[in-house]
Amino acid sequence: MVNLREELIFQGKAAKEAARILADVSTDVKNRVLETLAANLESSAPEIVGENMKDLRAGEAAGLSRAMLDRLELNPRRIEAMAEGLLALVSLPDPVGEIAEMRRMPNGLQIGKMRVPLGVVGMIYEARPNVTIDAAGLCFKAGNAVILRGGSEAINTNKILVKIAVDVLTGFGLPASSIQMVSSTDREAVSILLGMYEYLDVLIPRGGAGLIRRVINEAKVPVIQTGVGNCHIYVDNGADLDMALRIVYNAKTSRPGVCNAVETLLVHQDLAGDYLTRLYDLLCKNQVELRGCPRTRQILPQIKPADEHDWYTEFLDCVLAVKIVDSLDEAIAHINTYGTKHSEAIITNDYLNSQRFLREVDAAAVYINASTRFTDGNQFGLGAEIGISTQKLHARGPMGLEELTTTKYVIYGQGQVRE
Amino acid sequence: MVNLREELIFQGKAAKEAARILADVSTDVKNRVLETLAANLESSAPEIVGENMKDLRAGEAAGLSRAMLDRLELNPRRIEAMAEGLLALVSLPDPVGEIAEMRRMPNGLQIGKMRVPLGVVGMIYEARPNVTIDAAGLCFKAGNAVILRGGSEAINTNKILVKIAVDVLTGFGLPASSIQMVSSTDREAVSILLGMYEYLDVLIPRGGAGLIRRVINEAKVPVIQTGVGNCHIYVDNGADLDMALRIVYNAKTSRPGVCNAVETLLVHQDLAGDYLTRLYDLLCKNQVELRGCPRTRQILPQIKPADEHDWYTEFLDCVLAVKIVDSLDEAIAHINTYGTKHSEAIITNDYLNSQRFLREVDAAAVYINASTRFTDGNQFGLGAEIGISTQKLHARGPMGLEELTTTKYVIYGQGQVRE
Repeated sequence: MVNLREELIFQGKAAKEAARILADVSTDVKNRVLETLAANLESSAPEIVGENMKDLRAGEAAGLSRAMLDRLELNPRRIEAMAEGLLALVSLPDPVGEIAEMRRMPNGLQIGKMRVPLGVVGMIYEARPNVTIDAAGLCFKAGNAVILRGGSEAINTNKILVKIAVDVLTGFGLPASSIQMVSSTDREAVSILLGMYEYLDVLIPRGGAGLIRRVINEAKVPVIQTGVGNCHIYVDNGADLDMALRIVYNAKTSRPGVCNAVETLLVHQDLAGDYLTRLYDLLCKNQVELRGCPRTRQILPQIKPADEHDWYTEFLDCVLAVKIVDSLDEAIAHINTYGTKHSEAIITNDYLNSQRFLREVDAAAVYINASTRFTDGNQFGLGAEIGISTQKLHARGPMGLEELTTTKYVIYGQGQVRE
Repeated sequence: MVNLREELIFQGKAAKEAARILADVSTDVKNRVLETLAANLESSAPEIVGENMKDLRAGEAAGLSRAMLDRLELNPRRIEAMAEGLLALVSLPDPVGEIAEMRRMPNGLQIGKMRVPLGVVGMIYEARPNVTIDAAGLCFKAGNAVILRGGSEAINTNKILVKIAVDVLTGFGLPASSIQMVSSTDREAVSILLGMYEYLDVLIPRGGAGLIRRVINEAKVPVIQTGVGNCHIYVDNGADLDMALRIVYNAKTSRPGVCNAVETLLVHQDLAGDYLTRLYDLLCKNQVELRGCPRTRQILPQIKPADEHDWYTEFLDCVLAVKIVDSLDEAIAHINTYGTKHSEAIITNDYLNSQRFLREVDAAAVYINASTRFTDGNQFGLGAEIGISTQKLHARGPMGLEELTTTKYVIYGQGQVRE
């Protein structure tokens, strides 16, 4: 284990040194690197697919599920999408160097906030190898060095992707250690990274609840929690039932496996009979399993009961828990108890209720009359995202380039001293 | 230990419930609470001084240093200063509820960021009892509940201060659990607090390097590091020597025991002979001990040598380490190696050097031609501060009301669903 620790500390030091250089690279150079990387990924598609095939074969042999193998797969179309993602970054403004809130104080000092990169970002993520390029591109454009720790199933794919990126960096005279990956698939590597507060400025875990929990329990490096989304929609008394059907249908079925899909539906008692009957017809036709509270099952006796555990569950599947509530208060209390502070929606035509829901629900994104599925960097106009923060410090909701930076106070004086 | 843990979890739950209510209290009510608390502190001065006397006597018996006893003491003048601090908060704008960056997206969704309280803040601090009222006032005005864990030496003083605050809260019909203190002086209480991520949204430790290190090592709650300031001033070639003398004198002697005082002076070799001779005369007259690198001691053989450990040390005393450097590069490298990312200054008349120093020094506050002593919430125009962050996430530099809040995305729709 000593060798692995030494290797990671060596990478950490190299990343810190690279970060110092990257902080000062011009936007023009950064954009040219991203464009070249996009082109080289496309021209290296056969090589990438070849390495990816090794991972797919190993995954099949290890008995990975179809869904896992699908997430793992890179084909020419997906490689093109990665390249397009990099080109999208080129067109986004570079946040680094902006000076905001510059004021002149009574003593003549000029004090402002300069936007600067975070420094070294650690990314810990699971199967999808496209995260390797997305994260590397975002961190690089924001002036950060990055250390990537992807899933062991994608190790060969990640290695070739990082090699292509590093070749581009060195071609531009930039440090190879700007984008590094952890070459060991040992679980211990994650524990070591979590303790490397001298070298990592922030750790961003992307993955299931188990990974996130492990990171929070072990990390000494500051962490930005991402992703787990036990999202709710509350259909208020007097809501437009057609709108409520359309939104719940969209939020559950358009992509059930993602974090902004709805998992629990809360329905006001006064419209539950009519609404739930129509919803059942709509969702059952589309293979969605409903699980209901006792009052829901009085209306829909044919569905399974929901238990306490279901209220806590991010199903990531075609399953929807349903609960009838007496009031807006009960809905808000349920969400604030069982939710994961990701995305929450109310369907209502009541002005006061809509405003109370906005204020009182504690989540990264709170919606009135829209699908929770919009919580996404592109949909929110950030252009790209490195994850969706569900914590309150630093960044909340989709994190783009600006969330990968920090500020420092810059003070211009003419010899001022403090009385 | 079970009882202590249960007690703290009970307090955590109560704080969370209070936070839900505080988030929605109007600015008017919050200001009236602060005004009443200010008045009641002043009218309760004899009672407060009486309780403080118990702590002072216990401190004397326990052999606390004069400096510690001074920090612990509350007299009518200091109580008045606490009250004035609360009145200053009244005049500051309430950040809660502001909606920024509201935009209409192509699909008609209106997306903005609403400023909301963090929720429950944990404060862990040492001797000064005025922090109890300062922190409680700031957290309250920003709509947060707070759990205070002050130094055991100040336990009687803190108890009476919190009691006075809670009486005001309940008089306004607000939850008593909005402002709570940990009544146990057991060290274990800190460990329990550090693990209470279900109830605390952020922990802010204020104190020496030992406390900060312990918090970072143990905490599962997100932490904002504060305070430790190993600050540098670099006197560049061609600097105005009179200005450089005035600024270093101010930064070292105006208040040597605080975090924004200078601890190490870096001097360019080309002006070292002249400058250091004059500086020695100025500082020696004022009882400042200099410790020099070998080249400094060629100029000032009468001073003690500085060792490697001195470069890392926040003396918080009338001691200044001095090192001669060959270049701006060496100065920046020294600061980024030994500094604590607090406050760093260059004295220069060289435009390019000034800009490189601003960009390349990694610290919360970077100065050109001014004393490091200005790093402070009042001096930076924030009106008040709960601490000075030396980390990069969430807040950097002095933290005022806004830094005690976060945002959430609010989305107004008319039935939009995602394609």
